[in-house]
Amino acid sequence: MNLLYLLDLAGTAAFAASGAWAGIRRRMDLFGVLVLGLVTATGGGTMRDALLGTRPFIFQDETYLYVSLAVALTIFFFHRQLMFLHHPLLYFDAVGLGTFVVIGTGKAIAFEAGFLGAVIIGVMTATAGGVLRDVLSGEVPLVLRREIYASACLVGAALLYLLLHWGVPRNPALLAAALSVIALRLLAIRFNWSLPKAR
Amino acid sequence: MNLLYLLDLAGTAAFAASGAWAGIRRRMDLFGVLVLGLVTATGGGTMRDALLGTRPFIFQDETYLYVSLAVALTIFFFHRQLMFLHHPLLYFDAVGLGTFVVIGTGKAIAFEAGFLGAVIIGVMTATAGGVLRDVLSGEVPLVLRREIYASACLVGAALLYLLLHWGVPRNPALLAAALSVIALRLLAIRFNWSLPKAR
Amino acid sequence: MNLLYLLDLAGTAAFAASGAWAGIRRRMDLFGVLVLGLVTATGGGTMRDALLGTRPFIFQDETYLYVSLAVALTIFFFHRQLMFLHHPLLYFDAVGLGTFVVIGTGKAIAFEAGFLGAVIIGVMTATAGGVLRDVLSGEVPLVLRREIYASACLVGAALLYLLLHWGVPRNPALLAAALSVIALRLLAIRFNWSLPKAR
Repeated sequence: MNLLYLLDLAGTAAFAASGAWAGIRRRMDLFGVLVLGLVTATGGGTMRDALLGTRPFIFQDETYLYVSLAVALTIFFFHRQLMFLHHPLLYFDAVGLGTFVVIGTGKAIAFEAGFLGAVIIGVMTATAGGVLRDVLSGEVPLVLRREIYASACLVGAALLYLLLHWGVPRNPALLAAALSVIALRLLAIRFNWSLPKAR
Repeated sequence: MNLLYLLDLAGTAAFAASGAWAGIRRRMDLFGVLVLGLVTATGGGTMRDALLGTRPFIFQDETYLYVSLAVALTIFFFHRQLMFLHHPLLYFDAVGLGTFVVIGTGKAIAFEAGFLGAVIIGVMTATAGGVLRDVLSGEVPLVLRREIYASACLVGAALLYLLLHWGVPRNPALLAAALSVIALRLLAIRFNWSLPKAR
Repeated sequence: MNLLYLLDLAGTAAFAASGAWAGIRRRMDLFGVLVLGLVTATGGGTMRDALLGTRPFIFQDETYLYVSLAVALTIFFFHRQLMFLHHPLLYFDAVGLGTFVVIGTGKAIAFEAGFLGAVIIGVMTATAGGVLRDVLSGEVPLVLRREIYASACLVGAALLYLLLHWGVPRNPALLAAALSVIALRLLAIRFNWSLPKAR
C-alpha cells in the first residue's frame, strides 16, 4: 500500500521536526539536534521491533533515517525562516500519529500479539519517540500529562484490532483506524479536550 | 509451580499500584497514570526478555497486562479511599521483589547466562520497572539512592544461582532465594538499614 | 585481534570510572555507583546487540562485567586517593571511544546494516552508555550539548564503513578508524573545539 508508505514518511518528517525543535529550544549543539530528531521520529518503531524480536525497520529501509536526518538538519539551519511551519506541524503530527498507530498495531497482530498486546504496541509505536525526546531533554514526558494524544492512539489501535478480527479487509480497516486517530486528535486540538486528572 | 505464578501476579499488582501512585503525585492524567502503572509492573521483565532475545512475557500471557491496568485504573479513581493501603503496599512490594528476582534469575540461567549475567538479569527484572517509573517522573531513580532494596535482590539472585549450581532441586531453591529477598527487605524497612555512601 | 580486545577492556574500565564518579557526585549509595559504572561501560554495546537482535556481548564474555564492577567498586572506596586519575581519565575515555566505535560499526556491518545504519550503531555503541548515565543522574545528556565528542565517533564510523567498502583489509581499516576518532577527540580537548548551536 503505497499511500501508507508516503504517509509514514510524512509522519516521520513531522516527528523529526518536533524533535529537532525541542533540541534547539534546549540549546543543544548540531549533534544533539540531529539525535533528538532521529530518536523522536524512529524511536517508537525501533522499540516496537526490539520488543517483537524482529530486525528494526530503520535497518531494512534507510529512507527513514535519511528523511529524519535531512529534516533535523534543515530545521537546525533554517529554524527561524521555518517558524511559520511551527503551528501547521501539529496537523502533520496528527497524520504521523494515525499512520504510526496502524502500522504498529498491524505489525503486532502479524506477530500474533493478543488484543491488549497489539494495542499497547500500537500506542507505543506512535508515542515512545516523543517520550524519549522529552526524557533526553530532561522533561517529564508531555504525553503523560496533556490532552487527548495517546488516547486517540488507543482508540485507533483498538479499532484496527477489532475490525481485522471481524473480518474487515486490511486496507479499509487500516484507513478507518488511521482516520479515527487523526480525527480525534484534530478535534482535541480544536476543542481543547483533555483527560481527567486524579483529584 | 502455581504458587510462584500467584505471587508473581501479586507482585505485579503491587508494582502497578506504586507506579500509579507516582503518576498521581506528579499530576499526570489518566493515560499517564495507566502508563506508569504498566511500566513499573512489567518494565523489568520486558527488558529482561529483550536482553535474553526471547518474546516478552507480557505478550505470551496477557494476564499481567490486565492486572496492571486494572490496578492502575482502580488507584486512579479510588486513590483517596485506598490511602489505607499505601503503607501495607511496602510489604506487597517486598513479595513482588522476591518473586521477580527468582523468576528473572531462573530465566537467565535457563538461557545459559553465567553467574554475574544471571545475577544482573535477576536484579534488573525486579528493579528496572521502578527505575523507568522514576525516569518518566523526572526523578533520579530511588533505587540508586536509598536503603537496602536492590541489595536484597543481589543476595537472592546470587543465592539462587549457587543453590541450583550445587544441585539443590528447583522448587526449594526458588523458595529459599525468594524468602531471603523478602526477609532482607522487611528487616531493612523495620530497622532502617541503608548502604554506605561515598564520603 | 588481541590488541582490540585489550583496548576494548581499557575503554570499558575508563567508561566504568566515569560512571562511578558521576554516581558519587550525585550522592548515590554503593549500589547506585555500581549500577552507574556498569551501565556507562556496557550500556552502549548492550543496546547495539538488542537492536541487532543478537545475544548481548556481556553474557557471552563476562570479563566486561567483572572489569566494570571492579573499577566502580575501587572508585567508590578510593575516589579521594584516585582523584589524580580524574584528568587523565579523559584520555583513556578517548581510547574507549575509538575502540567502541570501530567494534560497534564493524558488528553492524557484519549484520548487514547499510551505511547510515552502521554509522548510527557505531556512534550509539560509543555514546549510549554515557547518555544512560546522564539520564539516570537526572541530567540532560552531556553528549547532546558539548564539544566534539559524538562527532569524532561519526567521522570514525563513516571512515570504517568506507574503508571496508573500498576493500581495505579489516585490521588496518579498524586501526585507521579508531585512531581518527582518538586523534579528533584529543584535538578537540586540546583546542576546545565545539559544534555550532542554533541561534
